[in-house]
Parts: sequence; C-alpha cells; structure tokens
Amino acid sequence: MFKSKDLLGIKELTPEEINLVLDTSSGFKDVLERDIKKVPPLRGKTVVNLFFEPSTRTRTSFELAAKRLSADVLNFSVPTSSLVKGETLKDTALTIQALGTDFVVIRHSSAGVPHFLSKILDISVINAGDGLNEHPTQALLDLFTIRTHKKKIKGLNVAIIGDIAHSRVAKSNIYGLTKLGAKVKVICPPTLMPAGIENFGVDVFDSVDKGIKNADVIMALRLQLERQSKGFLPSLEEYFNLYGLTAKRLKLAKDDAIIMHPGPMNRGVEIESGVADGHQSVILEQVTNGLAVRMAVLYLLAGVKK
Amino acid sequence: MFKSKDLLGIKELTPEEINLVLDTSSGFKDVLERDIKKVPPLRGKTVVNLFFEPSTRTRTSFELAAKRLSADVLNFSVPTSSLVKGETLKDTALTIQALGTDFVVIRHSSAGVPHFLSKILDISVINAGDGLNEHPTQALLDLFTIRTHKKKIKGLNVAIIGDIAHSRVAKSNIYGLTKLGAKVKVICPPTLMPAGIENFGVDVFDSVDKGIKNADVIMALRLQLERQSKGFLPSLEEYFNLYGLTAKRLKLAKDDAIIMHPGPMNRGVEIESGVADGHQSVILEQVTNGLAVRMAVLYLLAGVKK
Amino acid sequence: MFKSKDLLGIKELTPEEINLVLDTSSGFKDVLERDIKKVPPLRGKTVVNLFFEPSTRTRTSFELAAKRLSADVLNFSVPTSSLVKGETLKDTALTIQALGTDFVVIRHSSAGVPHFLSKILDISVINAGDGLNEHPTQALLDLFTIRTHKKKIKGLNVAIIGDIAHSRVAKSNIYGLTKLGAKVKVICPPTLMPAGIENFGVDVFDSVDKGIKNADVIMALRLQLERQSKGFLPSLEEYFNLYGLTAKRLKLAKDDAIIMHPGPMNRGVEIESGVADGHQSVILEQVTNGLAVRMAVLYLLAGVKK
Repeated sequence: MFKSKDLLGIKELTPEEINLVLDTSSGFKDVLERDIKKVPPLRGKTVVNLFFEPSTRTRTSFELAAKRLSADVLNFSVPTSSLVKGETLKDTALTIQALGTDFVVIRHSSAGVPHFLSKILDISVINAGDGLNEHPTQALLDLFTIRTHKKKIKGLNVAIIGDIAHSRVAKSNIYGLTKLGAKVKVICPPTLMPAGIENFGVDVFDSVDKGIKNADVIMALRLQLERQSKGFLPSLEEYFNLYGLTAKRLKLAKDDAIIMHPGPMNRGVEIESGVADGHQSVILEQVTNGLAVRMAVLYLLAGVKK
Repeated sequence: MFKSKDLLGIKELTPEEINLVLDTSSGFKDVLERDIKKVPPLRGKTVVNLFFEPSTRTRTSFELAAKRLSADVLNFSVPTSSLVKGETLKDTALTIQALGTDFVVIRHSSAGVPHFLSKILDISVINAGDGLNEHPTQALLDLFTIRTHKKKIKGLNVAIIGDIAHSRVAKSNIYGLTKLGAKVKVICPPTLMPAGIENFGVDVFDSVDKGIKNADVIMALRLQLERQSKGFLPSLEEYFNLYGLTAKRLKLAKDDAIIMHPGPMNRGVEIESGVADGHQSVILEQVTNGLAVRMAVLYLLAGVKK
Repeated sequence: MFKSKDLLGIKELTPEEINLVLDTSSGFKDVLERDIKKVPPLRGKTVVNLFFEPSTRTRTSFELAAKRLSADVLNFSVPTSSLVKGETLKDTALTIQALGTDFVVIRHSSAGVPHFLSKILDISVINAGDGLNEHPTQALLDLFTIRTHKKKIKGLNVAIIGDIAHSRVAKSNIYGLTKLGAKVKVICPPTLMPAGIENFGVDVFDSVDKGIKNADVIMALRLQLERQSKGFLPSLEEYFNLYGLTAKRLKLAKDDAIIMHPGPMNRGVEIESGVADGHQSVILEQVTNGLAVRMAVLYLLAGVKK
C-alpha cells in the first residue's frame, strides 16, 4: 500500500512502492488495449490539472488517465487563473480543495511547490514537474517501459545522455533506477553536469562512446534549446556532433538496447531521426505507458486513507 | 417553483424564490459530502460557459456544478470565440442555442447583457456577473452561508465593507439581504460610494468602526487594485489603514460574527491575513457552498417549463 | 459502408457514401430532438480536436457531437501545444495516437495536412478545414440541410455567392452538389474567381442578378474582411452593393428558395440583416444539422475496420 496521500517525488518512494505502481500499471495497460478503454473506479471524483508551465503532453496524459478512470477533470493554466488577480498560491490551492476536488496535479517552475501544497491540503497532490527537482510520473513510466522490455530493472546498464543539470526527468530516473538496482551512467557536457552528481550513485562520463558501452537502455534527454543562448552550449550542431544519439554510436551499446526519450524530441539535436524511428526505439510506447502509469498512480492514491 | 427560465439578478427574485434556492442547495450540499459526488438529473443536457471577462473561480464553480449534475459543459472564452471574427453577440447566442444547448452562463463587462440574451433565447440564461449590475449566484451562496451559520437571515446585522460603487457582489447581496429582512450597513470610502445608495434600504457609513458595531456578519469586498491608479484611492496602505478588516476592528462586531469574502482576496489590503484565516472566517465554506447553490440553480431552472 | 477510415474531402467520396452520411444524419437529428440528447456508441473512445487555426464554431460542433455519442474529447490548440517547443507535426500526431485516441479532427492553414496525417496514422482523421482545399463536414451539413427542405438534391439550382477563390466551403460544396446532380452557379467578383473554376462543372457569373435567377438554394459565403486590405476588394460597401444578398435580389430566385450561410456572418457585408433573419433563412438550422452530420461521420468512421 502507498503510505503517502501524495506523489511528490521518486526520492520519497520505497522500492516496494515503486514496484506496486509498476504492477498496478500492468493491469491498466490491459484496459488500454480494450475496445472500450474506460473503467469506473474514480467516478464522482475530480482531478484538477494546475499547470504553471505549459505542457500539452503531460497535462493531456493526466487528463486522459483521469477520464479513463471515469473521473471529472478541471484544467487550470496560469494565464487564465485567479493568480493573475494577485491571489496567493496557498489561497488558490485551498479554493481548489474547497470545491470538493480529490487530486491536484501540479506543475510549477519552482522546486518544492508540490511539497508545500502537500502540507496545506488534505487532498492528494501529484507532482507533474517542479523546477529542477523531479518529474516522478515520467520516471515511473520509464521504469515501466524498461521492465516491460527487459523483464527486470536490477543489474541493467542504463545510459542517460544530455543536459543532466537542468533535467528533472534525469533526476527522477536516477532515483528510481538506483532504488531498483540498475547501474546508471550519465553522459553530459561538462557545462551541463551538476556539481555533486556522483553522490547520486551514478557513473559520470563526458563522452557518449564510453558511456553507452554495453548499455541495455539509452535515454536521450530533451535539450532545452534556450540553453544555447545562455552560454551553456557552443551550437546545436556541435551538441549533436558530440552528444547526439546516432546510429553509429548506438552500435556500442548492446544489440538489444532500447532507446528512450521523454519527448517532445528535437530531431537532429539530441537524437538522430533514424534512431528515433528505428526498431530499437520505444519512444511512442513510453507515451502509451504514461497513460497506464498515471491511471495506476491516481488509483493507488485514491485508496490511501486521508 | 421558479417563475422565470432565467436567473438574471436577485432584484428579479421574490423572497420565496430565494428561499427555494437556499432550501434546494441544502440537499445538494449533502451530495457534495458523499464519496461519489455525482447525481444524474442533468444527464444529456449541455451547459455553456460564455465568459467575456476572465474568471477561473466562478467559471470553474459552474463547470463543476454542471458536471456533478451529469451535464456536459462547453467553455467559451472571448479570445478564442467567433466574436473576434466580427460576429454579433446575438448571432453567437443564437448559434449556441442552435447547437441544442440548455443553459448559457454569461459573464460580461456590460450591465444588461444577460437580460438581452434572456429575451432572444429560449434556453436558460444565468447571469455570472454583468458589469456593475449583479452577480446573483454569489449573493445566493453568501445567503446560504449566512443561513447555515445563523439559522436565519431576518434581523441580522450585516456589514459590507469596500468598493460599493464598483461591486456587483455588493449590489446582489444588498437586494438579497434586504428582501430576506436583514439590516445592511455599507462601509465605504466616500469616493467609492455610489450616489443614491440610501434608496437601496441600507445604512451608510464611512467608518469601519461605526459600521461593524454589533455586526452578525461582515463581508469584505475585493478591491480592484486598478482603481488606485484611477484616482479613487490614495494608496493601498492607506486603504488598509482606513478600511481593512483587522483583528482589532473585528472586536467591535458580535463575538460570533462570521467573516466573508467573495475571493480572490488581496491579503493585507481589504483584509488582514490573520482575520482571513481566523476561526470566524467562513471564506472557504463560501467556495464549497457556491457549488451547492449553483447546482440548485441549474436544477431549478431545468424544471421550468419553456 | 465507408471505404476509408478517414474523411479527407468530399472529392474523395462517392455519391453513395455522401448519401450514407445524410441518411445516418437523419437518425442523429432525431436524437438531438429528444430531451436526453446522449447515446452510447462511442463510449470509451477519444476524439482529439487538433486546431491550428482558431474556430470556436467547428471545434465546438465536433466536441458536442463527440460528447453526445458518449466519447471523451481532448482539445489541442496551437499556442498551448508541444509544437511551440519545436516538435514536428508528425511527432505530435504519432504522440496523440500513442495515447490510445480514436479520432483526430484537424484544422490547418495548409492544404493537404489531413491527407498527410491520414497516411501516418492508423486512427481516423477528419478534415475540419485545410487551407484553401476542403471543409467536408460543412458541405455535408449543407447538403443535409438542402435535402431536408427540398427532399432531393438532383436538379436543384444552387447559387453560391462570394469569395470563391479563398473558400474551402465553396469547394467542398461544389464537389458535393455536382456529385449529387445539382446545377451549381458561382457568383463572384472577377478578382476573387479562381482560375479554372469552369472545370469544376459549374456555371460562372459575375452578377448576382443573373446568377440567382430561378435558384432553389442560395449560399452566401463569409467574406474574410482582411481580403480588402490586400487589394482584392475596393470597399466593404461596394462589395455589399455589388454582391450582398439583399431582399431585392432575393426576389429573382424561386419563391421558396432557401438562404444559407456557413457563419459567422458579416451582416451588411455579404448578407442583408433582414435576409439573414427572414423566413427563407435556414442559417441556424445549418448549425443544428452540423451536429447531426458530425455525429454521423464519427459514427460511420468508427465502424470502418482498421
């Protein structure tokens, strides 16, 4: 059983809790393959998407997950919310709770906002990305995707390539993969490598060729193109030359390595187009699995006594 | 029974109709406390939110009220509507009706727009705020909240503090409270006091200390911060000093006085933060009650023969 | 039965397929006249509205059609979509499909985008307007409206007045009307007449008086007001004088001619206000019929084996 009413980060989860989400997700994956993809467990419940950063992809995945569990969904986005009228985040959150809602899915540019809401709200808070901290449902869907293909997580070599310093996806995956016993190698330009990364129990490389050797799983991270203008990167071409995931480099990994990307992709920047579309890519499966995992998270949190 | 197919303002309602809404709201409040908060009476009906002014709070409350009655909801907001293409409001309204919808919830910056739509449409029109005129569901939820706490409206002392001249919330509450027999005291800077306010059957004060003496209910109105730049107010600090609802001033009211605010609050402007969060505050209850009252309004209007 | 999983244009349909849509629409029109306007055939299915051009009218009609068939609906519009993050249209489309959705309703400013999506997606693609090419559901609802009033399409005189060069509505209607045996007359200022229009099997006029003689049906097209600034038109007043549908001109058509407009209308530009509201106008019926026709299209495409 889940201990917490909230999903704030992978850091806060035990390996047992992570595995419970993955096991529950399998059941919902089956539902998604049916002709009628709707089940009743959250009928009469309300899920609020409270997004302070734009994200069609994650918001839509939560919206659809909620609807397939028969919940109602309310979408709040910043430009149209009361916040423009000067209300505090706390008052906005308490107002949402006073409407009798059951879940707040929050994305915010500041790390820790979900934790803050968690303390002031009795309803469930789900972190959909907070600053440079975590994006736990992304890591859960990545773990689910890996487990589906490799039948296990423990002992796998997982290479994560990209802008580690600015990636909450990387951070959540590092927590999850190491908790479940995978060996994680992070590959990153020196300017984008966070200080103290070694303390996360990962091996650090600044060369893709060395880092992906014998990899079972390769994750290319999205490069925020605006990093370039801030001096972190010389040029997108050079980034691709040095860190892009190409068919040539892919040969250094295991033959059955799977290729992952959280999307949306910058083809020709962090990943070669042919690799993104190749037979080792599971990128679109990640999208499908995201739905199953988010259904599982909503379902499990609904079962926690409040 | 409701006489009109529309809810245009409290001015148009009889005391019996107001009480019918409040009684019906009690039933829906019970529904909202259930685990499954959904009931079927509006299944197959469609509620259109047509908002020409932004309002997450009121729109969301109507959206959720409709969904809990099992209605479908369509949200129109101005920047994305056909109106930008030069269509008249009348044509927009007739088009919405031709889609086979059942309710139009309208907010507009011009007073009287709901009344205009009421005449041209056969479907129900609900005023969600029209210019400086009325905001009837806010007054109904305020009345419901007061009645829940005080078991009656008649004979209560109700103090309304703030920008009376620009407040449709105040206006609707004045109509409702006086119709149900409360004594209303309005407290307001002279520059924000509307001419002829005495004709509304209220007592007028420009000092908070005098106006809230013996109050059973105190309503702080939201201050539109842009008023300041238009010369109505010297400064927000001075407004707070003269008209802010503070713990000190609150002592002049009855010990069991309740504190209300329509939200969103400007803490430290119209209300002291400690008062907003204090044990006399019913501000979050107002949000919850808004849902019950809007369900009641939709339900009752659906029962009117058209 | 429908051959294709997609509705890309009227050009691609056989007369039998067009008639199948119209016959199926009749059944759904009956549903729309019931008190409870909801039927279950698409329960558990998901319809995605992917609109790259703003359109409240068409998007809402599809949204409501889907909801009345008990489908779930996701609305994507460009400013909030991943596309702003640099993702390709192909990746966006494949992501939408990977979410386990069933229909993509697409509007795009470039002709051929629905055809492109049709090739890369296994789910159904419905063209809701692509550049200057087609707007097939508009033509289907127009045909349905004509057939309801005239009991047939074959042999009718149909006059289409307006900016033919820039009208996908005109183009789809010309395909549909000629396939079903109507005689189509297009009336248009010379600067707005597309080259090669004669090859579409229509008669061409640059005078309204000549063109609408003996018409059974008159369609006024919406004039995109921005055309004027591009030098296609002298002035809106002159356009109205020369091409506006006035009561006086209407007398040249048959006495029982019906007046159509796809909306939103520019009253006093392409149509005289009295004509738009007159007893021969079926403009609001078109809106209602649009819902029935879109329900029929969704229903029929859902039945195609994929």
